[in-house]
Amino acid sequence: MMDDIENGSMGPYQDRPRTFPDMRTKPYTPLVFRLIMGLNTRVLFILMLFAFGIIFYVGAKTSPIIVFVFSVCIASFLLSIYLTKWVLAKDEGPPEMAQISYAIRDGAEGFFRTQYGTISKMALLLAVVILGIYLFRNTTPQQESAGIGSTASAFITVIAFLLGALCSGIAGYVGMWVSVRANVRVSSAARRSAREALQVAVRAGGFSALIVVGMAVLGVAVLYATFYVWLGVDSPGSMKVTDLPLLLVGYGFGASFVALFAQLGGGIYTKAADVGADLVGKVEQGIPEDDPRNPAVIADLVGDNVGDCAARGADLFESIAAEIISAMILGGTMAQQCKIEDPSGFILFPLVVHSFDLVISSVGIFSIRSTREVGKPVEDPMKVLEKGYSVTIVLAVLTFGASTRWLLYTEQAPSAWLNFALCGLVGIITSYIFVWISKYYTDYKHQPVRTLALASSTGHGTNIIAGVSLGLESTALPVLVISVAIISAFWLGQTSGLVDEAGKPTGGLFGTAVATMGMLSTAAYVLTMDMFGPIADNAGGIVEMSQQPESVREITDVLDAVGNTTKATTKGFAIGSAALASFLLFSAYMDEVAAFAHLPFKEVDIAIPEVFVGGLLGSMLIFLFSAWACSAVGRTAQEVVNEVRRQFIERPGIMDYKEKPDYGRCVAIVASASLREMIKPGALAIISPIAVGFVFRILGHYTGHPLLGAKVVAAMLMFATVSGILMALFLNTAGGAWDNAKKYIETGAYGGKGSDCHKAAVTGDTVGDPFKDTAGPSIHVLIKMLATITLVMAPVFL
Amino acid sequence: MMDDIENGSMGPYQDRPRTFPDMRTKPYTPLVFRLIMGLNTRVLFILMLFAFGIIFYVGAKTSPIIVFVFSVCIASFLLSIYLTKWVLAKDEGPPEMAQISYAIRDGAEGFFRTQYGTISKMALLLAVVILGIYLFRNTTPQQESAGIGSTASAFITVIAFLLGALCSGIAGYVGMWVSVRANVRVSSAARRSAREALQVAVRAGGFSALIVVGMAVLGVAVLYATFYVWLGVDSPGSMKVTDLPLLLVGYGFGASFVALFAQLGGGIYTKAADVGADLVGKVEQGIPEDDPRNPAVIADLVGDNVGDCAARGADLFESIAAEIISAMILGGTMAQQCKIEDPSGFILFPLVVHSFDLVISSVGIFSIRSTREVGKPVEDPMKVLEKGYSVTIVLAVLTFGASTRWLLYTEQAPSAWLNFALCGLVGIITSYIFVWISKYYTDYKHQPVRTLALASSTGHGTNIIAGVSLGLESTALPVLVISVAIISAFWLGQTSGLVDEAGKPTGGLFGTAVATMGMLSTAAYVLTMDMFGPIADNAGGIVEMSQQPESVREITDVLDAVGNTTKATTKGFAIGSAALASFLLFSAYMDEVAAFAHLPFKEVDIAIPEVFVGGLLGSMLIFLFSAWACSAVGRTAQEVVNEVRRQFIERPGIMDYKEKPDYGRCVAIVASASLREMIKPGALAIISPIAVGFVFRILGHYTGHPLLGAKVVAAMLMFATVSGILMALFLNTAGGAWDNAKKYIETGAYGGKGSDCHKAAVTGDTVGDPFKDTAGPSIHVLIKMLATITLVMAPVFL
Repeated sequence: MMDDIENGSMGPYQDRPRTFPDMRTKPYTPLVFRLIMGLNTRVLFILMLFAFGIIFYVGAKTSPIIVFVFSVCIASFLLSIYLTKWVLAKDEGPPEMAQISYAIRDGAEGFFRTQYGTISKMALLLAVVILGIYLFRNTTPQQESAGIGSTASAFITVIAFLLGALCSGIAGYVGMWVSVRANVRVSSAARRSAREALQVAVRAGGFSALIVVGMAVLGVAVLYATFYVWLGVDSPGSMKVTDLPLLLVGYGFGASFVALFAQLGGGIYTKAADVGADLVGKVEQGIPEDDPRNPAVIADLVGDNVGDCAARGADLFESIAAEIISAMILGGTMAQQCKIEDPSGFILFPLVVHSFDLVISSVGIFSIRSTREVGKPVEDPMKVLEKGYSVTIVLAVLTFGASTRWLLYTEQAPSAWLNFALCGLVGIITSYIFVWISKYYTDYKHQPVRTLALASSTGHGTNIIAGVSLGLESTALPVLVISVAIISAFWLGQTSGLVDEAGKPTGGLFGTAVATMGMLSTAAYVLTMDMFGPIADNAGGIVEMSQQPESVREITDVLDAVGNTTKATTKGFAIGSAALASFLLFSAYMDEVAAFAHLPFKEVDIAIPEVFVGGLLGSMLIFLFSAWACSAVGRTAQEVVNEVRRQFIERPGIMDYKEKPDYGRCVAIVASASLREMIKPGALAIISPIAVGFVFRILGHYTGHPLLGAKVVAAMLMFATVSGILMALFLNTAGGAWDNAKKYIETGAYGGKGSDCHKAAVTGDTVGDPFKDTAGPSIHVLIKMLATITLVMAPVFL
Repeated sequence: MMDDIENGSMGPYQDRPRTFPDMRTKPYTPLVFRLIMGLNTRVLFILMLFAFGIIFYVGAKTSPIIVFVFSVCIASFLLSIYLTKWVLAKDEGPPEMAQISYAIRDGAEGFFRTQYGTISKMALLLAVVILGIYLFRNTTPQQESAGIGSTASAFITVIAFLLGALCSGIAGYVGMWVSVRANVRVSSAARRSAREALQVAVRAGGFSALIVVGMAVLGVAVLYATFYVWLGVDSPGSMKVTDLPLLLVGYGFGASFVALFAQLGGGIYTKAADVGADLVGKVEQGIPEDDPRNPAVIADLVGDNVGDCAARGADLFESIAAEIISAMILGGTMAQQCKIEDPSGFILFPLVVHSFDLVISSVGIFSIRSTREVGKPVEDPMKVLEKGYSVTIVLAVLTFGASTRWLLYTEQAPSAWLNFALCGLVGIITSYIFVWISKYYTDYKHQPVRTLALASSTGHGTNIIAGVSLGLESTALPVLVISVAIISAFWLGQTSGLVDEAGKPTGGLFGTAVATMGMLSTAAYVLTMDMFGPIADNAGGIVEMSQQPESVREITDVLDAVGNTTKATTKGFAIGSAALASFLLFSAYMDEVAAFAHLPFKEVDIAIPEVFVGGLLGSMLIFLFSAWACSAVGRTAQEVVNEVRRQFIERPGIMDYKEKPDYGRCVAIVASASLREMIKPGALAIISPIAVGFVFRILGHYTGHPLLGAKVVAAMLMFATVSGILMALFLNTAGGAWDNAKKYIETGAYGGKGSDCHKAAVTGDTVGDPFKDTAGPSIHVLIKMLATITLVMAPVFL
């Protein structure tokens, strides 16, 4: 290696490719994946058939709908295996690219192992706590009549929790697994054609999207079917099917628990490495971004994979799981209230919607072809992705309508399905508007980012003031949209004609649930676009590090810019659906508390001082959580700065390519620091609702207020949800806008790269980093985790 | 004037005083003040006796308590006249000082005239709207039984509103009037001794504090007594005294309406001038702060007076008025529920507490003497102010206890007064802890600001990230404190032994009200400390501009630093009391709605989708309001930058003192821009609750939900209050911490003045300016205005 460098010419930086070969520390692929990848297709097929057999046996005993769901999920897994084979069949490019890619892969896999090791230990500990709590809890009248004791209920919850946690972990791993392999293949494809690079990135993203969504659906379906068969549901003297979904909440909590730490750890990792690498490399040493001489460069590229791919996989997995379960609970409750003869259609509706999601998103993904039609000009990649999105949305409207007619038709209210189809349409339109609003505020084609860029021309201070104002202002439109969506979906549900025994309309909440499903009905395609971003970003990094010609860089730069926009817009989508899902879980929580406490629990009255205080504490939780998430990035970045400075001093040969920087040490430092830093905000999120609920339960006991703990926690949850939506919108949009204002100036506006205006914009970008990639996305997860933790921990508050 | 300059030596900047004489544009003192100041003491005395007579006649017909309140208020007015005479008797220093002071005075008075002209027009318009609404509203059963029709009720509300607006305007004017006169006298006194300068500043602040608090108390008392006599309260067939306080809400709304626009306009003015002057003067031209050659320097100094003194006067006036009225309403409601024989003690209790506030704060103000005791070392001015505060607090505890025993003793529950005294103690302790927490997070003697200063050493970006984290984190402790305060005061009230007819404890809310009063029981002294800040700041500017010797500057610098800390801590105090006052007004709102709608209105259930949406919109309102307030400063500052740049180009002689800059033009530009910019956020705050209430009222009408509008507005109010508390704490603390981090670095830490670290800290300071002096304090007012507007506009929602 040293020979190689010493024999090379010492000409100017751009003249010839310069990199350090052999960046790899040690190879690693987990056993289970090595087995699957090494399998003969025929063996795999036989194994699949066997799995089919068992699953379909259980499914057939439950409902034909479950059989449909299983079939679609398995088909989509087969499709995703095809996609993997297709992506992996692409070449890894010249050795210098492959070397860099291996180093990134090792760093990402190493961090993943350690991070998920820590998370699993915490999950196991929490499982024991949940077990203990449930063993001493009361049982609901429904459970008593079904003959389920505390012990059975405890094990059901703990098993669901652990399964959710495991699936969430796998979802995160899959997201990262494919991105660390696809990045180099995208770089390599970029040497040939822009369109091929785009297709590789999209298909790699599609692979993990299909797995993530498929697993969320399959997990819930398998749990549902297993409990159905095991508990002998609907046979006389057993549980009613309408009460079954409540047993699944543990799954949602497990998923959000893992997602929270995955997002926090990954988010801190990626931004600390990014900020730290830039502060010394770009600012102090004056070397370009992604330069191989920067000891933190590999850590930075690793961060994209663990922070964006793995964490976003776990995040969307958890969104879908939480939303499916809450909609199932509401469907069951409503079906029971309306005495619908066969409630399974209402309960299983969410699973069917997401099965169709898998089908139509696959169509969308495959609509992006590698070669453009002859005679047409080269298209903007954003246009290509948007065309795929349009295809998916049109199909979503059609399949959603068909699903409502199939499952939600009931003779009691013959036109109800039509109302619910409209609810779904409301959801689909809402998600479309959300994506559009995020784009308006973060894309430099529009006014807001241009105004922000102009404000940079008067200095760092005015840039920050303008960015903060922009972020705060950008909360208004999404809130108005979501308000209209909630109210109109509720109204459509109420007027669906479904009434309870007393003749009171009851479909309102279910209407909101259906709107949420409509919003998420293109989740797999949206996740594909989201995964596309970090893969393209990484590919750009590899191209830069391996010193490819300008033309290749241009291709990856365009893909990177498109990826930034899709990343920003899918965040809008994620927070919108989190808001709706939390509102549903809140209703489920009230039902649950009422069932366990044997007391009516129909309202959360914020005129009661304790309840008001709960709300105050809930909002404060969001502020404190954001503070800790941001300051964690700052502190970790500081450690990176010190390490990189140390390496430049101790190994002066690095700058002349004579000494290899110790990438591993930077990776290790960022990894251990971000694992340490994720604990504090994570623990805050988990402990505070439990502590508040418990304290007010005791207080309620002594002041003669039954249910005080449960009510205070409910207020805490609602206020946290509202503040969380606003804070996340603020952080995501401000961060995205700062990033793109910088990019806009780099296109030559207001003096271009290197001007004072650009420097001010870089400051904004640095501030935006922890906003948009650490604190903001963590709040999405936090909101849903609060909703599921209150559901699971309800016995503590009673 | 030109001769003067041309004959002078052209030596280096520090060698000799350099300034432009004759900075004054035109003199102006409003007629009423010229009359009062010109009066012979004997004539004044006779006039006073006459006023005494009328007021006491009405007071005596109402209650002896009112007579006591009147006496104290009038005594405090006499005292404040003494203080004015004392301050005005001090000399204005050398002519160059007086010249600068005149220019500041003219600018401030000019802006005040225009601003309050605009505000009065809006207030008159709103009065007509209110009149229209009330003429068509229903009347409550209480009003019907008392024979008050719609017309009487409409005129009562409008008169109260206009009186509140007028008094708030006077309070603002007084704050500004004294500060533009005291600033130059403090500068002049600083030439003699630090202690004398301190005393002048404190006594000037004390003058306006006594006027502001006294006028808030007297206004409510006069209205109460007038209505009492006019309506023949408590005579058979008339209104009951317990219903009387509800007629006063218009007063509170008028006060908060004016305060909102005063704070917004003043806040935008002061920070736009500050940021604009610094950006060109300090950064581009490299001349010191407060240099007479900067055309925006007078506008900057004017800003301190209109933004801090006038606006804060209106703010605290409105806090006290809102809190007195809400506590009176709650006292009346409770007295009625408990069938207390003589309810006037409970109703008039807040007036008595604030009368004592006037007395004890005067003692505190006079405890600061001009000469230190012989043989003792020179004291830190902060220590002197804190000693005064301790004296006031000890007296507050004693007088508060005495007031509860006097007014809240009832034979039905002999120990209730003791519980309420403890509630007051809770409030006093809360305010003390609030002040302490603000100091901890914003004073550079403590860890947080030092960490922030350290973060500046790695650049602009990390400074901003650290400041934002610090601000977000600083919300946690105050929220915990206020939570404990609300719950413990409520509990003390509930267990006071006061029960309603059904034997249910009812004193809880009144307990919270008493705690709020405890918190505000030292308001006059706190306001004195607050006014001290901008006066000292202005004095420093005058000393700098008139090129006084280093020793004089050192004295004003120390006073300025102390003023920064007191300003920051009193903001904590203001937001804490705003939180409690809003919670009380919210209860009053529910009572009011129930009375007008003839329907029970006991709860605000956030599980109803529309109500939840109301909450979402309420929180969003705070975010959007903050965004607009911040961006208004940015845009106005931009205009200042352009004007200053233009003057430097068109009058090149300015830099050599050969041409006089056109100060007036900068003042005029900032004034008209800030008046224009204050309309958008102000209108948002006023229109959105009315619009939301009206829309949901219509929606409720068509979906068969009575009271839907009122409930949605209630949720909006509560969520806005919670988000507002957090946002204001965040903005105030982050801004204060950035300011002091810069000051800490200027003491020599991390490279001191001029280092890169200092530049990063200056960026933070610039960002913090609109946070802490425009958006943050406006939110205090916004919270209370939302509470009073919903009370007054309730008929729109029903």
